[in-house]
Amino acid sequence: MTNHRIALIPGDGIGAEVLPPAQQVLDVLGRRHGFTLSYTSYDDWSCERYLRAGAMMPADGIDQLRDKDAILLGAVGYPGVPDHVSLWGLLIPIRRSFRQYVNLRPIRVFEGIDSPVRGARAGDVDFVVVRENVEGEYSEVGGRLNRGFPDEMAVQEAVFTRAGVTRVLDYAFELAALRGGRLTSATKSNGIVHTMPFWDQLVAERAADFPQVAWDQEHIDALAAKFVLEPARFDVVVASNLFGDILSDLAAAVAGSIGIAPAANLNPEREFPSMFEPVHGSAPDIAGQGIANPLGAIWSAAMMLDHLGHPAAAKDITSAIASVLARTDVRTRDLGGAATTAEFTDKLLGLL
Amino acid sequence: MTNHRIALIPGDGIGAEVLPPAQQVLDVLGRRHGFTLSYTSYDDWSCERYLRAGAMMPADGIDQLRDKDAILLGAVGYPGVPDHVSLWGLLIPIRRSFRQYVNLRPIRVFEGIDSPVRGARAGDVDFVVVRENVEGEYSEVGGRLNRGFPDEMAVQEAVFTRAGVTRVLDYAFELAALRGGRLTSATKSNGIVHTMPFWDQLVAERAADFPQVAWDQEHIDALAAKFVLEPARFDVVVASNLFGDILSDLAAAVAGSIGIAPAANLNPEREFPSMFEPVHGSAPDIAGQGIANPLGAIWSAAMMLDHLGHPAAAKDITSAIASVLARTDVRTRDLGGAATTAEFTDKLLGLL
Ligand SMILES: CC(C)[C@H](C(=O)O)[C@@H](O)C(=O)O
Ligand SMILES: CC(C)[C@H](C(=O)O)[C@@H](O)C(=O)O
Repeated sequence: MTNHRIALIPGDGIGAEVLPPAQQVLDVLGRRHGFTLSYTSYDDWSCERYLRAGAMMPADGIDQLRDKDAILLGAVGYPGVPDHVSLWGLLIPIRRSFRQYVNLRPIRVFEGIDSPVRGARAGDVDFVVVRENVEGEYSEVGGRLNRGFPDEMAVQEAVFTRAGVTRVLDYAFELAALRGGRLTSATKSNGIVHTMPFWDQLVAERAADFPQVAWDQEHIDALAAKFVLEPARFDVVVASNLFGDILSDLAAAVAGSIGIAPAANLNPEREFPSMFEPVHGSAPDIAGQGIANPLGAIWSAAMMLDHLGHPAAAKDITSAIASVLARTDVRTRDLGGAATTAEFTDKLLGLL
Repeated sequence: MTNHRIALIPGDGIGAEVLPPAQQVLDVLGRRHGFTLSYTSYDDWSCERYLRAGAMMPADGIDQLRDKDAILLGAVGYPGVPDHVSLWGLLIPIRRSFRQYVNLRPIRVFEGIDSPVRGARAGDVDFVVVRENVEGEYSEVGGRLNRGFPDEMAVQEAVFTRAGVTRVLDYAFELAALRGGRLTSATKSNGIVHTMPFWDQLVAERAADFPQVAWDQEHIDALAAKFVLEPARFDVVVASNLFGDILSDLAAAVAGSIGIAPAANLNPEREFPSMFEPVHGSAPDIAGQGIANPLGAIWSAAMMLDHLGHPAAAKDITSAIASVLARTDVRTRDLGGAATTAEFTDKLLGLL
């Protein structure tokens, strides 16, 4: 029987409350589909650890994860710890050390979830955002000059490499081909004059190798508007690190699912572990009360199973999520109900 | 009687069809409020000129505009001319040469316009996006290395100066104070580690001088989501060049008004002419048919009058726009009707 070694990093706040439900679901599916999962927990890799010991994870943290097959992360962030400290101390080093260059964000309107956008109906809106995840606008290159003086300035280099852009485009075009669909590239080559025309050029080059994929490109400002105006028209959207970050959160909001959306940080070659994480934050306001919505973590677990080679098991999970939302009125507080995390999880397990 | 010297740059496509209606409106208001406008037209500053003569405007174009009090621009862009050529050949040099460091985008849901977002109701949504307009992520600094080789790369420098950020923040805080409202700063200091923490720091510094303004900050991904989820909660949103570009188009879409929205490119010190332009593009698909919606240009003209010191005349225009939308069913095609540009303009003139 295949065993998968999973690293669990609960992180901060509700992170520790949403991972156990995901584990329960994973174990049920392992039994059903014939695989096992063994877990290693990194319970203190968190902002609390940072406040106590000056670092989010130990110096050899990345090496401790290296032999795992996948990483399931809860949430990162804590009042009083600047976001760039917590994120560049844990989340971003993992993404980069393990070359998780694809950030995959499925966008789907579920029946039973109200979308804030009139045109976003269940069944019609079902697309993915493929975000470049390790280079681009998020770069360590840059700095500050003349600190504290009137002529102070800060510069930030965005770095786009042919190899880095091409590999994520390949992933996106392959996905579009598999889905039998269309690809939309997010650009801003009318405003960002050095990197974005380069991005466009690489998109056109890759497109030539995928004649079966219809594709177009939109400037990020117009594209953000179209997510609201015509959300049903998208299939695969590929974007740079920053644009993908913005578009994927916007799309999740359009789908009414910011609280339940998952993200996969993929190393498609499987040279290194990939990481799966709910999109929601650590929600310090409700942490410790046992009322967090576990669907983001559970949906992330589904993406993990897909990546580990169990697409049928993954499908079982997303079907159960669709059922619990469409066919029951058990809901956590964020969805307008009063169920606890445990009650909601039980209901979902019953539908699996 | 005060006279204002106005430069008219119709540009491309429907640009030439939406400026004459704006002039008609302006002239009516001049007679009523006691000022005159004299116009200089720059009819051939366009993509056609670029294709013929290799440049969007003459070499001394900027100097020709220098003694004007304001510039009213139609639209720029034409199939076959890359956007970065047309825009960096006309729009962006004007913004930069005349230090139009504030891009102001009013966002308003009008009665009679359907918003795609359920929560966006007329009366509730009424805010402004203040965008930094001359530095930040739109910079000429950067370039391409190893062109055509596997190790090719492009870099793009984002440049944020203390002076450049502070002046637009001052404008935004003053506006928030005037409106008796709140200010929201768009940031991404968790991902963009050099420039955005600097932006946040300057926001906090300026905020200290405006104790009467309540303010907060949101990461751009979460903020884009909130524009869809809670559009009524915003009042003044201040953002960098790129973030403001994205947020203002997104907000216009949320308000259902992408086709009628205006933009002001302001030099608040009035050292140089400011520029006013509808947000819509040159719409080559409908150009020449006389069916373009002139409201974007007319609303831009209202912003121009406000800037030139005629707030009451500006108010007359926005009231007439509100009336034509709420109280008549005369509509151009983009709004679901069949009226021509001329018919729609006449209706509006009748309501002035
Ligand atoms: C056309 C483009 C360069 C421009 C910008 O991004 O500034 C436009 O989107 C705008 O908002 O005026
Ligand atoms: C927290 C932040 C650095 C991160 C990002 O922007 O990458 C988050 O928004 C995400 O999308 O995973």
